[in-house]
Amino acid sequence: MTVTTTTDRTAPSSTGAAVNPPAAPVVPSLSRLRPLGIGEVTITGGPWATRQATNAAATLGHVEHWLEREGWLGNFDATAAGASGADRAGREFSDSETYKLLEAMAWEHGRSGDPELDARLRAIVARVAAAQQPDGYLSTAFGRPGTPERWSDLEWGHELYCLGHLFQAGVARARTAGPDELLEVCTRAADLVCEVFGPQGIPSVCGHPEIEPALVELYRVTGQRRYLEQARLFLERRGHQVLAEVEFGRAYFQDDVPIREADVLRGHAVRATYLSSGAVDLAAETGDEELLAAVVRQWEATVARRTYLTGGMGSRHQDEAFGEDFVLPPDRAYSETCAGVGSVQLAWRLLLARGEARYADLVERTLYNVVDAGPSASGTAFFYTNTLHQRVLGTVPDADHAVPRAASSLRAPWFAVSCCPTNVARTFASLQTLVATADEDGVQVHQYAPATIATDLPAGRLELRVVTDYPHTGRVEVVVERAPADPVAVTLRVPGWATGATLTDGEDVREAAPGSVTTTRAFTTGEVLVLDLPLQPRFTAADPRVDAVRGTLAVERGPQVLCVESVDLPGERHVDDLVLDPTRAPEDVEGGVRVHGWLRQQADPAWPYGEPTPGGAAGEQVSVLLHPYADWAERGPSTMRVFLPVPGAPSAAS
Amino acid sequence: MTVTTTTDRTAPSSTGAAVNPPAAPVVPSLSRLRPLGIGEVTITGGPWATRQATNAAATLGHVEHWLEREGWLGNFDATAAGASGADRAGREFSDSETYKLLEAMAWEHGRSGDPELDARLRAIVARVAAAQQPDGYLSTAFGRPGTPERWSDLEWGHELYCLGHLFQAGVARARTAGPDELLEVCTRAADLVCEVFGPQGIPSVCGHPEIEPALVELYRVTGQRRYLEQARLFLERRGHQVLAEVEFGRAYFQDDVPIREADVLRGHAVRATYLSSGAVDLAAETGDEELLAAVVRQWEATVARRTYLTGGMGSRHQDEAFGEDFVLPPDRAYSETCAGVGSVQLAWRLLLARGEARYADLVERTLYNVVDAGPSASGTAFFYTNTLHQRVLGTVPDADHAVPRAASSLRAPWFAVSCCPTNVARTFASLQTLVATADEDGVQVHQYAPATIATDLPAGRLELRVVTDYPHTGRVEVVVERAPADPVAVTLRVPGWATGATLTDGEDVREAAPGSVTTTRAFTTGEVLVLDLPLQPRFTAADPRVDAVRGTLAVERGPQVLCVESVDLPGERHVDDLVLDPTRAPEDVEGGVRVHGWLRQQADPAWPYGEPTPGGAAGEQVSVLLHPYADWAERGPSTMRVFLPVPGAPSAAS
Repeated sequence: MTVTTTTDRTAPSSTGAAVNPPAAPVVPSLSRLRPLGIGEVTITGGPWATRQATNAAATLGHVEHWLEREGWLGNFDATAAGASGADRAGREFSDSETYKLLEAMAWEHGRSGDPELDARLRAIVARVAAAQQPDGYLSTAFGRPGTPERWSDLEWGHELYCLGHLFQAGVARARTAGPDELLEVCTRAADLVCEVFGPQGIPSVCGHPEIEPALVELYRVTGQRRYLEQARLFLERRGHQVLAEVEFGRAYFQDDVPIREADVLRGHAVRATYLSSGAVDLAAETGDEELLAAVVRQWEATVARRTYLTGGMGSRHQDEAFGEDFVLPPDRAYSETCAGVGSVQLAWRLLLARGEARYADLVERTLYNVVDAGPSASGTAFFYTNTLHQRVLGTVPDADHAVPRAASSLRAPWFAVSCCPTNVARTFASLQTLVATADEDGVQVHQYAPATIATDLPAGRLELRVVTDYPHTGRVEVVVERAPADPVAVTLRVPGWATGATLTDGEDVREAAPGSVTTTRAFTTGEVLVLDLPLQPRFTAADPRVDAVRGTLAVERGPQVLCVESVDLPGERHVDDLVLDPTRAPEDVEGGVRVHGWLRQQADPAWPYGEPTPGGAAGEQVSVLLHPYADWAERGPSTMRVFLPVPGAPSAAS
Repeated sequence: MTVTTTTDRTAPSSTGAAVNPPAAPVVPSLSRLRPLGIGEVTITGGPWATRQATNAAATLGHVEHWLEREGWLGNFDATAAGASGADRAGREFSDSETYKLLEAMAWEHGRSGDPELDARLRAIVARVAAAQQPDGYLSTAFGRPGTPERWSDLEWGHELYCLGHLFQAGVARARTAGPDELLEVCTRAADLVCEVFGPQGIPSVCGHPEIEPALVELYRVTGQRRYLEQARLFLERRGHQVLAEVEFGRAYFQDDVPIREADVLRGHAVRATYLSSGAVDLAAETGDEELLAAVVRQWEATVARRTYLTGGMGSRHQDEAFGEDFVLPPDRAYSETCAGVGSVQLAWRLLLARGEARYADLVERTLYNVVDAGPSASGTAFFYTNTLHQRVLGTVPDADHAVPRAASSLRAPWFAVSCCPTNVARTFASLQTLVATADEDGVQVHQYAPATIATDLPAGRLELRVVTDYPHTGRVEVVVERAPADPVAVTLRVPGWATGATLTDGEDVREAAPGSVTTTRAFTTGEVLVLDLPLQPRFTAADPRVDAVRGTLAVERGPQVLCVESVDLPGERHVDDLVLDPTRAPEDVEGGVRVHGWLRQQADPAWPYGEPTPGGAAGEQVSVLLHPYADWAERGPSTMRVFLPVPGAPSAAS
């Protein structure tokens, strides 16, 4: 890899003393913060370590099993054998699931070194490679007898999207195991893409962004500038109505407004976050501050006006899209698991580029309340969407059948459009790379989990050990295992909600305001910094323009959004019967967070509108246990809600 | 027509002395109330007379023009000429728009007797008839070279749906002008349908109900029992999964549960209301009380839990469908204009069958706030959907181009799916038939407009004249123009909202409670009954389970739902800045209804959730004029809302 560092720029520059590029999903040449790779950070315990273990032990095999039984892997064999595509299995983008599995396997193998996993990965790569045509073209859905012609349906065909995921798998493999056959498959395909879609080629883009960040990453691994240039071409073309009009409008695939000019993320939420991620990657390679500022501006508007409390993005089922500003209905939340993954990818890139804690805040919120909500604890069933209000008891999905995009109340094993299992798998497999970063001066810890962090700084090697049972409690100990003789900076993020946090450094106790707290000095082995984050549960209200949750409060605890489920109500009453008492603070108790309120008897009038009466708090007094939203529906069908009504709103006399 | 009256039944029976069936859209053989036809009721003034005049002068010609220019009429010529269907214009159901236009023309011609309109109608009928195949098959989208085979796509093909609209046009023509060529076209097609889909035929149904009520009506006109039997077959088959599974699930076309067993309307709202209308029609011919009771039960649940304040039905854009109970977001209201038409048809049929005022209440609400909201005052532009909260200023639709299903803030002249213009046209053309009914004892007036009502009762002829400027004021004078010597009953509906209404009969002043008030006596020419309905504007709140409008109030005045538009706010501020003062009652003033409140300055925090603060009423004090919802967007792009927030709800500190 050729690292192009520009020394005459005062803004971001990659610093720290790392010689080899880190084994991490995003490695910008220029950035405010330097990512730490798999070798530098290890999550050693706590819920995220459990997730990584489950991912390795259960999810990867589950995904591989379903790809095989649904015939999506077999598509590669059929293509290699020259068979007709007439009876091809799966949707036009099913190849991407294989590539995302490969990416997940690569990161996991990089973490564990498991030779059996390595062998499984190589076996799949061999099947993929066999399906590649001599000129580099690779797709099981296009370009062979019985399938449409190559590039004949850029709006919906997903050929470039699939290749993007292929490249990300190749990058992951190269960064964790060195260049191998998979990277060769990638560069052959990428060379073809540059030829076909280059300056003299087809002047269009893919209906689903993804190849943009992938090409930049492939450039980072290979040093081939044409890949970077092709990513730039794709990014600059989009927004000029290069794709056909579709039912949902061109905003659906962000072809309505050029990315430099847009004000907010819009259209399909996964498409939007992937595209913006690619723009940040491009800006990071080219020092394009204008482009970076455009993405920051859109991210700010999106977070301020179009994001659920959980961090979830997308409120429209029709087109899996962002709604208008402040249209965030809990009961029609789409909040696709994959949009959560996309949002984490975007916020992480912005964190590397700009270094501000707000990006890590959103990463944490989204990891805890969207990405972690998607899969079951078993790692073998998944929510495609993540509603914030379940009104009807769902039916138990058949563990042996794929379902459509499920908006049910229970997680399903597989989907006709099955992007979430693989997206979750690759995120968890590389989760440790989101924990910390470095810069010239020291290390920044962004996410709190039991972990080891070790990297080489200009001043020398710094090794830290994080001891915590966060988010169960808010005490985070950062133990210095090894430190340079000269001063280094240890920066700890203070989440936006953590008003009243303190940092204890020996005898010194400091207030640590939301944002981050930095300790710069020479450290000695065995010294401990203790960050105390106030974790008592808290009520949260919404901006009054979020009409859908007016007159309600949510309950949060640390980074976790909580919810009530009907299985926790007396007699399994419907959650919509619960009225919250806002005068009694939520409290930590054994097994959950307790709130108080009333269970009202709901009359069923003939007409649900009428003369206003003051909203009293009639009904049976109850205390109810709330649990983390991410864990909901683990105990079977349940009604559920995050935002709980408080007394006081006028309602129809009944 | 063979009228089968059963005299040994105590429940509904068609009564009154009418000899010829009335010229009205629904003429049940057995019913509690007897419809009055076009010759019996005339709307003589007021807003509904204006609508009928505009419909005749503008809308019918507008529709005919667009059907011609879009080639949807030309499809019939091409089919007649044996041309290939490869370049056929329009969607698979475009024939139905021609049939709905014919139905509208027939009713309008029945009303006005306009010979020029009669000639236009005949000309279109001739083109339609020419396209019919010798065996009776009629479709421009199926069954000829270059199109799919007959009946090859029952889920989405709409062939039977289109024929249903054809039959309704034929029925309208037969009832207003006597049997003619159009009725012959209908019976030829209906005979084929009975052959193909009869007991030994294809055991399935159409994905879009419509032929069910149409076949019953065609039976009523022709006396052909096989049509009634075919309607029964279609109704009984549905719900047994006779159609293929589709993305939206079988509830989409009500093929999930048999109509006798369902608890509530669900799925596509137009499909649901049309199907239920057919079931009521069938029940009315067969005396099937179980079936009628099933529809009543579903209607009650739908009105109590799945209907907007406007009467609008359908809250899902994705599948134009009912949402779950109480999921009624104003800003994502679908409330399709055609679903409003369907709901009026259903409620009207239930009113005839059961005679209860609640059905006429919903007819009135839906006519004023959905059906009348769809078209512009000019009658040449239309809302496809009817949102209750417009958050962004729309763009002015091009008057010269059809648009997709528009959910914009301005009415469009035509749509790719253009069902609403013709549905509105046929409803307005026959509007007078919704005004009043008769039974053995007398006449029931359901809707209030300047009108003449005249019918023959067993006791003799009764002629009434209604004098009112309702809904501007609430005074309704019913002047007796002619009456039998013996006592007859004059029943006036008292709307559900009209608490405190009075009926004045000479010196006698009675309280008239919501429901209806009946005066039974011998009347003398020139006597007047005066119904005084309290029309002062009123605040309305919703059931607390309608989460989307918690902490808000709407303002209604008589049958009209009001709204605020940004063009009526100082500085054209956004409607979302307005907070309503619920302690100051709305008041009638010149030009509208005045409410009081505050315009708050909305901060734009980085994150729209946070610690709750009491919802105060800060901001500039304002008085604002509200106008009828149905008139919104007549003055150009505007933000708009129906439900206005009141102070008191906690919100995020900003």
